[in-house]
Amino acid sequence: MYEILTIKSKNEFELIDITDKVREFVKRNVKNGIVIVFTKHTTTALIINENEHGLLQDIKETLFKLIPKRGNYKHDYIDNNAHSHLKSIILNTCLVIPIINNEMVLGTWQRIFLVELDGPRERKIIVKGIEEK
Amino acid sequence: MYEILTIKSKNEFELIDITDKVREFVKRNVKNGIVIVFTKHTTTALIINENEHGLLQDIKETLFKLIPKRGNYKHDYIDNNAHSHLKSIILNTCLVIPIINNEMVLGTWQRIFLVELDGPRERKIIVKGIEEK
Amino acid sequence: MYEILTIKSKNEFELIDITDKVREFVKRNVKNGIVIVFTKHTTTALIINENEHGLLQDIKETLFKLIPKRGNYKHDYIDNNAHSHLKSIILNTCLVIPIINNEMVLGTWQRIFLVELDGPRERKIIVKGIEEK
Repeated sequence: MYEILTIKSKNEFELIDITDKVREFVKRNVKNGIVIVFTKHTTTALIINENEHGLLQDIKETLFKLIPKRGNYKHDYIDNNAHSHLKSIILNTCLVIPIINNEMVLGTWQRIFLVELDGPRERKIIVKGIEEK
Repeated sequence: MYEILTIKSKNEFELIDITDKVREFVKRNVKNGIVIVFTKHTTTALIINENEHGLLQDIKETLFKLIPKRGNYKHDYIDNNAHSHLKSIILNTCLVIPIINNEMVLGTWQRIFLVELDGPRERKIIVKGIEEK
Repeated sequence: MYEILTIKSKNEFELIDITDKVREFVKRNVKNGIVIVFTKHTTTALIINENEHGLLQDIKETLFKLIPKRGNYKHDYIDNNAHSHLKSIILNTCLVIPIINNEMVLGTWQRIFLVELDGPRERKIIVKGIEEK
């Protein structure tokens, strides 16, 4: 019981709201239990927060302030995207969300985002349900 | 098999130890498996760490140093709490803890905290058990 | 269905790749479901990222830049390792990884690391499988 979401990002940095895709999976597949959302990449992340235009810009600016694009990184001699990896490690690779009656128990303002940190690229997200006994 | 904890915070920033409440749920509901702790809010977080008075102050100061309360944030034109959202995204929305014989396998110093980032408010935390087969 | 990994770190800061140990557990124990990796310590963390020598140094430098070893921390009057606790809270205590046909669905570059933040020490990591119905 799982699904692979294929998400094409369009920008180097992007916050892509995947809530509806996860909700669809849950509706069809899990009555009571949990859903795991897992990104298969080392230069993306997953977060849950509010989808408000200004906030999405604040998230971008905060991440670039905490971890600048250029920083004398050693990995940049290999692949020139050290900052993308470093941002991903202070965010999440996986999320787990409770499900009650085929619905995720998200709060009013909670939305699930794929954080693209080294786009544009095609990304694969695993959505897996665990039904409770 | 779940419970909703209602937690009333008293301060703008607060670290609230909810370990005993989660332990009670586990004792009554899950023999072997996992417990998921999930906050339904975009201006709170969940962490596991030590409940030592000095450390709790260090956590507060570190979070405010990394993400200051005022920072020319665009979301502040809408709701004046951008910093609370931004702090929450570098922490966690959900925790998953293994359970063996009706006990969480927490280490000696590990305690579960709700991190209030925009209080005082009433908050809802979902505690959900998954029993293994 | 669980295993306790005992990991002896050799340095104060260390990124220890535990992917193969988790993979072995999964191969023997879980056909389809999830694996939970949980560290029992408040001065370690778990991350998923690429095992590239330069990047591992970048991760160390970034963590020490964000949260310096000395910072007038109050917990240092008790235990002199406040920075280790503080680094752990912006990383993860637990990871959840989907399993399909006895294999974790990790991407090409994804490796699981124990982050030692206050070594050298002996550390205990819980690896727990949940088989889906």
